[in-house]
Amino acid sequence: MKKLLCLCFGLLAATAHAQSDSAIVKKISDEILLRGEAYENLRVLCKTIGHRLSGSPQQDKAIAWGKALLERSGADKVWLQPVTVPKWIRGQESLKVKYEGKWQTIPMLSLGNSEGTEGKVLTAEIVCFNTMEELNAAQEAKVKGKIVFMNYAFRQEFVKTFDGYSDIASYRFNGANVASRKGAAGLIIRSLSTGLEDVPHTGSMRYDDDVRKIPAIAIGNSTADALAKWCKAGRAEAALQSTCGMKGTAMSYNVIGELQGQQEGFIVVGGHLDSWDVGEGAQDDGAGCVQSVEVLRTFKQLGLRPKHTIRVVLYANEENGARGGVTYADSAVARKEKHIFALESDEGGYTPRGFSLKVSAADRDKIRNWKSIFMPLGVYDFEEEGGGVDIGPLGKTGCRLAGLQPDSQRYFDMHHSRRDVFEDVNKRELHLGAVAMTSFIYMADQYFD
Amino acid sequence: MKKLLCLCFGLLAATAHAQSDSAIVKKISDEILLRGEAYENLRVLCKTIGHRLSGSPQQDKAIAWGKALLERSGADKVWLQPVTVPKWIRGQESLKVKYEGKWQTIPMLSLGNSEGTEGKVLTAEIVCFNTMEELNAAQEAKVKGKIVFMNYAFRQEFVKTFDGYSDIASYRFNGANVASRKGAAGLIIRSLSTGLEDVPHTGSMRYDDDVRKIPAIAIGNSTADALAKWCKAGRAEAALQSTCGMKGTAMSYNVIGELQGQQEGFIVVGGHLDSWDVGEGAQDDGAGCVQSVEVLRTFKQLGLRPKHTIRVVLYANEENGARGGVTYADSAVARKEKHIFALESDEGGYTPRGFSLKVSAADRDKIRNWKSIFMPLGVYDFEEEGGGVDIGPLGKTGCRLAGLQPDSQRYFDMHHSRRDVFEDVNKRELHLGAVAMTSFIYMADQYFD
Repeated sequence: MKKLLCLCFGLLAATAHAQSDSAIVKKISDEILLRGEAYENLRVLCKTIGHRLSGSPQQDKAIAWGKALLERSGADKVWLQPVTVPKWIRGQESLKVKYEGKWQTIPMLSLGNSEGTEGKVLTAEIVCFNTMEELNAAQEAKVKGKIVFMNYAFRQEFVKTFDGYSDIASYRFNGANVASRKGAAGLIIRSLSTGLEDVPHTGSMRYDDDVRKIPAIAIGNSTADALAKWCKAGRAEAALQSTCGMKGTAMSYNVIGELQGQQEGFIVVGGHLDSWDVGEGAQDDGAGCVQSVEVLRTFKQLGLRPKHTIRVVLYANEENGARGGVTYADSAVARKEKHIFALESDEGGYTPRGFSLKVSAADRDKIRNWKSIFMPLGVYDFEEEGGGVDIGPLGKTGCRLAGLQPDSQRYFDMHHSRRDVFEDVNKRELHLGAVAMTSFIYMADQYFD
Repeated sequence: MKKLLCLCFGLLAATAHAQSDSAIVKKISDEILLRGEAYENLRVLCKTIGHRLSGSPQQDKAIAWGKALLERSGADKVWLQPVTVPKWIRGQESLKVKYEGKWQTIPMLSLGNSEGTEGKVLTAEIVCFNTMEELNAAQEAKVKGKIVFMNYAFRQEFVKTFDGYSDIASYRFNGANVASRKGAAGLIIRSLSTGLEDVPHTGSMRYDDDVRKIPAIAIGNSTADALAKWCKAGRAEAALQSTCGMKGTAMSYNVIGELQGQQEGFIVVGGHLDSWDVGEGAQDDGAGCVQSVEVLRTFKQLGLRPKHTIRVVLYANEENGARGGVTYADSAVARKEKHIFALESDEGGYTPRGFSLKVSAADRDKIRNWKSIFMPLGVYDFEEEGGGVDIGPLGKTGCRLAGLQPDSQRYFDMHHSRRDVFEDVNKRELHLGAVAMTSFIYMADQYFD
């Protein structure tokens, strides 16, 4: 009987708790949907600064913007954490393809971190492979001195497009190494994109230490369709000219703002401030930055006093080095700061659907019990494994990780391309993501130590 | 022991069942995501025909397009079901507002079914009310001979925007009646829109039999903000000129195609072919039409033989009369056709999230058990009550109803406005909706009689 009574009181207490949490989540939701500032902040970032690759002059402007925004949004303390970042320059670039005696200019983008042709024209026959396995199996003589075209397309049958991205990612990141080992003179890949136009999408690659650094570029899907046909039907030749390359390192900064808590322990919420050097870095990841700042603004505005110190981190250099995340985690370890949770938003500002988690099984069960709190926001999925690139290093120190999971259908249409602009972002979707994030941080602060 | 064995076998059978259903849903998903035709069909509808109001020449073209498409998509039988529809004409229209001695032209749309000024210029003072209650409480002298401006805005704090639409809908549908009873000369409403620009959104209204038919128009939210300020600060005057009005009736048709089943009973899946006379009727409801045809095409393509006869119905006249839905249901009753389920897609071609249902509690429980089948599609919500305008009349005959529920955040930015164009539709989102619908129809066919 005593046990039963205990159980009953326990349930009643839990229900009362859940009700007051729901009431606070409703306040958060109303505040952001009615008076949220994330969308207007994103407009300023995209339209007055634009894209902001690590080491670029725009990067410096964005850092100043982020610092001023955090101060204005009510942070108790704002500072810049120095980060040494690689400096990669695109420079000039062009691709022409000759088929049946006719040269055609094809829209292209050099892959980030790749070396170009030093401004010379690299002319070579194009040899097409449909998969990495095909290229691996090819005889060197077939590849030597030629430009490899990797005709592997984003698999559209994955319902979650990030699964498709994982499937194809090594073609961009590692393709040049495989081609170079076979003696290729250059690499052309299909863009890692669900979009079907001729729009090229860039993104990072890396040379292994033991390979010759051959040029590596991406072309759009419709252009790739044509090129695949030409390669099949006869002989295609490329003339590639580019001046891109690594130019040492530069100084950058993680922009950090915090709301001081009442007890020890830190909770991080962040996105990355750098972007590729095309488009405006609106969804990737201006959205994550302004949403993270909105978490802090909303806590302050509603007078929610966090138990733990909440830090907004606008990370440096996610795109082509991930140095910001490493620097933050190193500093946390050096200063013996106990981080209990980190949340990242780096999958776009589309309508939120869930949070990926990198936590213990027991913690995941605890978070699954928050479903009734999150369901009214349309947030239902806590099953995926993961966190994010920038908070990954913190995870290695034992910190629990979570990643906002927005609807993914449109993301790879614009990702890393000139289509990633402010106009692709919907105000309600962006703000609803900020509501989900603020609610998650509120719950994590309440129920984790 | 025997009971336990029975239970075990029962569970095993149910699991095996679920596995084979999941396998079929995966086939459906792959077919549509890889080889779906809905997006291209929608392009043709939007770009070669465009909008298609009941009784317009474009309506006739769309009917011919729908019939040919159903034939090409593999229907066993295609026919046109005659429907008498109201014929409303927009004609010419303009609104000017005078404030501080200056006349300004303001983007506007007459509400569908409303009568205009017969081409004359109606000049009157504008009187502003924030809510219907305020207008109801106003003395007649304050309203008489004036143009009422209903300054009630779409409430952005609703997470599901259709809840916001329900909240504000009577302002458009019934506002003219309330204003007219107070002696108003005309009505201006804020568009029923989440969009914040000066884009006006039309939509249907209806005059009660006992009121004078005063002109009724909508303006965009940013223009409404300005007008509200002017009304508060001083005197604003409107000059409205329009030639819209009802011009009798016209002939239209429900376009119907069916896949014959192996036993008695019908399942309906549909959207509406008519649209407002602005934009291209892409999301509303070209999307629902091409998705419904895609259900049939996919069944045929995969060789899925339905138990019941599946009918695709492209309904006439949803927007300003809903005569198509009534005609279809009347015919079903007259021909004693037993309809076991009807599914409608009329909330846009955005990423699917669930199905609203109008079924018994026991049937809803049965459908909730399909969650494991639908979760891989990101479809998780079977809790909402509802079906749709076109299948509503079938529901009254005892047929179970379901409505596709896509993500709703962007819908009322473009709904009934010039922004409802093909470019707003995302191929993957549209096709994923068709996957969810085809899977739902497959399951309904298997498990309901």
